[in-house]
Amino acid sequence: MDLIDRLRAITPHVLTGPDALPYGRDWVGKYVTTPLAVVRPNTTAEVSAIMALAHETGTPVVPMGGNTGLTGATAAEGALILSLERMTRIREIRPEARIAVVEAGVILQDLHIATEAQGLSYPMTFGAKGSARIGGTLATNAGGSNVLRYGNTRDLCLGIEVVLADGRVLDLTSELHKDNSGYDLRDLMIGAEGTLGVITAAVLKLTPLPQAYATAMVTVPSLPDALQLLNRLQEHTGGMVEAFEYMPRDYLTRLAQFRADLIPPLGHDVDHMIFLEIASTVPRDCSVDDTGQVPLLSALEEILGEMFEDGLVLDAALAGSVAQRRLMWEIREAAAEISVNTKPLVINDLCLPVDQIETFLSRAEARLKPLDPGVTSCTVSHLGDGNVHYTIYPSTAALCDPLMEAVEDIVQDMRGSFSAEHGIGLGKLSSMQRRKDPVALDMMRAVKAAFDPKGILNPGKTLP
Amino acid sequence: MDLIDRLRAITPHVLTGPDALPYGRDWVGKYVTTPLAVVRPNTTAEVSAIMALAHETGTPVVPMGGNTGLTGATAAEGALILSLERMTRIREIRPEARIAVVEAGVILQDLHIATEAQGLSYPMTFGAKGSARIGGTLATNAGGSNVLRYGNTRDLCLGIEVVLADGRVLDLTSELHKDNSGYDLRDLMIGAEGTLGVITAAVLKLTPLPQAYATAMVTVPSLPDALQLLNRLQEHTGGMVEAFEYMPRDYLTRLAQFRADLIPPLGHDVDHMIFLEIASTVPRDCSVDDTGQVPLLSALEEILGEMFEDGLVLDAALAGSVAQRRLMWEIREAAAEISVNTKPLVINDLCLPVDQIETFLSRAEARLKPLDPGVTSCTVSHLGDGNVHYTIYPSTAALCDPLMEAVEDIVQDMRGSFSAEHGIGLGKLSSMQRRKDPVALDMMRAVKAAFDPKGILNPGKTLP
Repeated sequence: MDLIDRLRAITPHVLTGPDALPYGRDWVGKYVTTPLAVVRPNTTAEVSAIMALAHETGTPVVPMGGNTGLTGATAAEGALILSLERMTRIREIRPEARIAVVEAGVILQDLHIATEAQGLSYPMTFGAKGSARIGGTLATNAGGSNVLRYGNTRDLCLGIEVVLADGRVLDLTSELHKDNSGYDLRDLMIGAEGTLGVITAAVLKLTPLPQAYATAMVTVPSLPDALQLLNRLQEHTGGMVEAFEYMPRDYLTRLAQFRADLIPPLGHDVDHMIFLEIASTVPRDCSVDDTGQVPLLSALEEILGEMFEDGLVLDAALAGSVAQRRLMWEIREAAAEISVNTKPLVINDLCLPVDQIETFLSRAEARLKPLDPGVTSCTVSHLGDGNVHYTIYPSTAALCDPLMEAVEDIVQDMRGSFSAEHGIGLGKLSSMQRRKDPVALDMMRAVKAAFDPKGILNPGKTLP
Repeated sequence: MDLIDRLRAITPHVLTGPDALPYGRDWVGKYVTTPLAVVRPNTTAEVSAIMALAHETGTPVVPMGGNTGLTGATAAEGALILSLERMTRIREIRPEARIAVVEAGVILQDLHIATEAQGLSYPMTFGAKGSARIGGTLATNAGGSNVLRYGNTRDLCLGIEVVLADGRVLDLTSELHKDNSGYDLRDLMIGAEGTLGVITAAVLKLTPLPQAYATAMVTVPSLPDALQLLNRLQEHTGGMVEAFEYMPRDYLTRLAQFRADLIPPLGHDVDHMIFLEIASTVPRDCSVDDTGQVPLLSALEEILGEMFEDGLVLDAALAGSVAQRRLMWEIREAAAEISVNTKPLVINDLCLPVDQIETFLSRAEARLKPLDPGVTSCTVSHLGDGNVHYTIYPSTAALCDPLMEAVEDIVQDMRGSFSAEHGIGLGKLSSMQRRKDPVALDMMRAVKAAFDPKGILNPGKTLP
């Protein structure tokens, strides 16, 4: 019995030939591969049987969630794609315990809808939320726009269920907030991009659903002024800033070009635009007061007014309706779409010390222009985390790697990271080789060998 | 040249014979061992040279911080103790970046003093803060009384510097809030109790120093009422509860017996006592208002008043001075001292779902009494985390293990953990063997073999 027949004995949901091809292409359109087949199990037991079979036969396996990654981590030339897309059960939501137990194939937005119906929030959000799946967010330790307040995926996950390379199930589905019984295997699996195991389910932390939002677009004279605005907001609200996003001129220019339907409230002719949101669960912030205003919104107006007087804010538009708030979010969440539709491109997902971003951007421009006078860029930043999405468009494909190296040089010199939240996949393998501490690389390889001695799990990814 | 001479060539700070003996005894007085020697390096380079020598000669090494652990993790029969106590430099505090870079030997309280001088806080605190060292808190992923708001050690650490078993230095001293460049080796090292590497320095997160505290002791009719109090406080303050500690009658009885100098504001004749503190950095909470009150304190009074009306609070004493606040903290932080001075004892450091603690305590009592009618207990709990310190005093030493197993049975049945924040060391090795998922144990052993192939780092600890 050949491999495909044996897979079909585990589950009928096996795709081959042309049916498998769409799974072999990534969202950016950079990696086009021909998978051996696609298997779509429905239960952890099926995943376990598939991995045991792959282990026995030495078949390379690429775990796949929503396939919205930006680094080619699910490229699958000749490999078996293990898609979690049919494991979409929300096993339970326990409002008093503030947890959700979900399978890896649950779509992020579906979890938002389910938790909000219970007055709670799973506070991770990013542009691809309508197709990204929980398993993928765990595999990449995804970030997004609310990390400032709630942390990355790792911070939002209490426990996981994992199928190991040989098919054994590793049960780490604790819902406890404290557990010091041995090594932290959970956080090792999270962010490992499917190279150490296949995450099949997770226990996720839920947070109270904000009862009021104050959302605004603000123009500032400079990036340091934006940081001052962030710090004042945090101080005055006791840390209620959920999103603090930076969109400079190069972003707004591309927005006008590719999403002309989304008109920013303060227009496109702006050097430094900030999109911000504060949110509260505290009754005194949220209930309408004598003047008919929500106090949270009044507080934001007051701080922005003070900063306008001080010359630190140039202009501001507050969202006065649900529709205005949604427009502001759409302008920010269009980032992935508007930044990848020019080729060739280099996606840089950088992290820098928060107060160094202006310096980085000016150093990068000064370094890149002489190498490629025709280079252009699209910048958008989760400013509060120091995370800069700095996509560049070289004049020719041959310049991609030299320009990426030039960016890395500056990032390394500033003690930043060449991968903040997208992970490594294939796209940043050369950066790992060039920039990562060699001792760390050695130990990562030792960990990989311990968990996947035959090297069948997502081979060739993450580790050079 | 023998080993001791070779150590002395690295650093003159080598203790042998009677000078080494005090390091071989743990704080509880349960583990009394005779170390081979104690070496006290001053720099990471010296630690590296010591580990290279130990690796070459196959010498077992026990890393040691303040030696305040409760599980025998630093017992060192025939082993070389590597004490970090001379590496006490605070390398830098950068207030704008809100980080401190410290060496492993820094005493926790010294870091508190240094950060508070800059208007910032390193918000980890527990009874042994005056002697516990940062390296030890990292090795055990220490918790304490402020986890509810700020998390465990793992949540407070951005980066670490580690010397590996063979002496190589693993530089993970990032100060970034987002870094997805490969596997999470940092969190693997944190909580590994010195069995995977020797942590020599860390980059720690600092938080704004609260500008006002509202601190109280409260008596409640039952544990579920206490949880309601916690939830209301969190809702009304937007999550400003820093400490929420439970001290029932068995605790207050021992307090009267062993620390008669600490008189609880509401007396000792109480079934369910809560010690709580809320803290704020928000100016509107902290500045004295027209009535001469701090609004934060008024808010607490109001919530307690409402709950008193509803019959959910029986009585409350608010700290009206710095001295009263300090007394309340001392009553809570006497826990370790008053709980270990009766022998034989079994220290249970349990974690349970937050709403299951009352059930656990009644099940435990019902189970233990028939096994040992003379058993007594001392209970204190970080209630908001589900962490219960449930120390029991069997009638005879022979009953220690049977009673510990009986407690474990209940904890496992309730999907709790037998180790919340103290770690495993030697004291909980049998629990690891009995209770931990065998697949998880297998993978932990594989990780141990990858990092420490000769098994010289804290041998015999953590993993059965």
